[in-house]
Amino acid sequence: MERVEKLKKIGRKTGINAFLVNSEKNMRYFACFSALAIERFAGIIIPVETSAPMVVVPKLEEEKAKKYSAFKEIRSYGDSENPAMLLSQMVKELRLEKAVFGVEGILPFKFYRMLVECSPKIRIEDASMFFSQLRSIKSDEELKKMEKAASIVAEGIKAGINFIKPRVSELAISFQIEKTIKENGGESVPFCIVLSGNNSAFPHGETSNRKVRKKDIVLMDVGAVYGGYYADVTRTVFVGEATEMQTKIYEIVVKAQEAAIKTVKSSVKAEEVDIAARKVIEDAGYGEYFTHRTGHGLGLEVHEEPYIALGNKTVLKSGMTFTIEPGIYLVGKFGVRIEDDIAVSRSKARLLSNLSKELLVI
Amino acid sequence: MERVEKLKKIGRKTGINAFLVNSEKNMRYFACFSALAIERFAGIIIPVETSAPMVVVPKLEEEKAKKYSAFKEIRSYGDSENPAMLLSQMVKELRLEKAVFGVEGILPFKFYRMLVECSPKIRIEDASMFFSQLRSIKSDEELKKMEKAASIVAEGIKAGINFIKPRVSELAISFQIEKTIKENGGESVPFCIVLSGNNSAFPHGETSNRKVRKKDIVLMDVGAVYGGYYADVTRTVFVGEATEMQTKIYEIVVKAQEAAIKTVKSSVKAEEVDIAARKVIEDAGYGEYFTHRTGHGLGLEVHEEPYIALGNKTVLKSGMTFTIEPGIYLVGKFGVRIEDDIAVSRSKARLLSNLSKELLVI
Repeated sequence: MERVEKLKKIGRKTGINAFLVNSEKNMRYFACFSALAIERFAGIIIPVETSAPMVVVPKLEEEKAKKYSAFKEIRSYGDSENPAMLLSQMVKELRLEKAVFGVEGILPFKFYRMLVECSPKIRIEDASMFFSQLRSIKSDEELKKMEKAASIVAEGIKAGINFIKPRVSELAISFQIEKTIKENGGESVPFCIVLSGNNSAFPHGETSNRKVRKKDIVLMDVGAVYGGYYADVTRTVFVGEATEMQTKIYEIVVKAQEAAIKTVKSSVKAEEVDIAARKVIEDAGYGEYFTHRTGHGLGLEVHEEPYIALGNKTVLKSGMTFTIEPGIYLVGKFGVRIEDDIAVSRSKARLLSNLSKELLVI
Repeated sequence: MERVEKLKKIGRKTGINAFLVNSEKNMRYFACFSALAIERFAGIIIPVETSAPMVVVPKLEEEKAKKYSAFKEIRSYGDSENPAMLLSQMVKELRLEKAVFGVEGILPFKFYRMLVECSPKIRIEDASMFFSQLRSIKSDEELKKMEKAASIVAEGIKAGINFIKPRVSELAISFQIEKTIKENGGESVPFCIVLSGNNSAFPHGETSNRKVRKKDIVLMDVGAVYGGYYADVTRTVFVGEATEMQTKIYEIVVKAQEAAIKTVKSSVKAEEVDIAARKVIEDAGYGEYFTHRTGHGLGLEVHEEPYIALGNKTVLKSGMTFTIEPGIYLVGKFGVRIEDDIAVSRSKARLLSNLSKELLVI
């Protein structure tokens, strides 16, 4: 319950008297349990002073809540009952009729309205920033899950590599990767992008029916979830041969990624990591072909704080996790991207993903 | 623009002066274009009287909006600009400073706040019900897309059936189905559930590594999207043989589904369709093993109005579309579910999915 204590501390500092947590990810973060809460109302009220957190769920989810929720005060409502009534009772019981509530920016309007209608004196503030801050620093337990997720993705990419040969389609390679990930315990595979030949030059390309040919490049960008946590890894390989040009571009990207990784330690700014990667690519004359940020935070979501981008002055702290994924995209020819997941420690980056990035010709 | 005209008519009737549409699905519905609008603000303001609809998107999405949006008034903001400022300007320009805005119930709180801060006289109401009502009646063009989606799912299930044999895993069958759907033009496969043996007795079971055995039952529940529209079809087949008991249960479910389908026509209540299916199963003595509603509306979302459930007094109208999917689940033994997608016409149901449901022993 360290997380809840930290949240309460923030509440005391900022004048927030209670938090309403409604999103699946944040429910999971604070209560070790989540409910699908878009159509029907579900959430956790976390009072800063008055009492213990209280969970509210539809009747259908009550058993699950009782079994998994870290908070033992659980209220539920049946299909024919009105959750607004129940919420109103809870607010009274918790003596929060005059409270300033911190909510998530993504709280649906209909639930926001339910909350303000509980009492005319309730005030609502967007506390998203505080939730992000807490979640951006991972515990050892979280890091272990992320490492496991990354090792499962690595197995998937290896299986993909073994499957690549001329006349096999991008889709078929993608399925091979996804299947391997699921067989290895991956909970879900939110994306599994395989781009071959020219397609690899599109940073947001989509896996297609295109069949791999001799002398193609194949880029695999794969995400998987384990224990609720994401891994996101990219590798680019060559079929039959790598031309001189391809070899050169590949080596620049590897160098850029290594330079970025070397920059990582606590007290460095997020944008400095981006700048390190960008400098290598610019110095090599390919700056304009590196068209996206160097990385994004990773955890319960695939995009979260901290973003590794120019302009982000966030100071890195031990336990922050993100991707480092520079790329060079030569439209009409090919693209190369190499992506690993890393955690910040006091003096350096700790690699969460562990998969060779030596130039590989299949 | 018939859809927009219908929405304006609702606005006039209910005292709503303008609508803010923010969700991906509703943007697509009204503007034939959508933007990912969760992190960054995007939306459409549809004034009821004062002027033409106006689209707002992040700069990055401007080209896409210009190319696809049915509305030609497009405003955008760059990464370093504040969308709240832009929204405020738009509200002034459209003379909506004193307007009652109809928004979606799922509008994120942070965007709700941006809107109310545009002017102290703005009032906000939840207009979700009106959006659902409009969307629940499909045009011929929409029905064609749904038929195409259903035919793609049928191809997938047929491929799954051809792939089933002892020692093949549920996951492998699932991948075969998904691959076939994608090769046939399916845009995405949001779920592809394959449950064999005992697993089939869980209406919300998950595809596993379990390998199919002789005398197993195999249940396949598959969704796919085409042109933005969902299909959702389930078939249950037998491996090697169907026991007398299995045959009996299968035939009850077929009979229940047919009874429900026969009930469908405009002017019938949604719950009457549920009751028709339920009666067959209850009369056969298995009422307690049919543990879910008979179906759900289908369209741009996989669950929408009308729900085919006890208590839903919604009167069916021509153009409404939903699943009919009764099932019997004998925990510890097996389960059978048969699901098709149908559209209401004046005098009967029109089947959108077209796939044999004769008892099949592989």
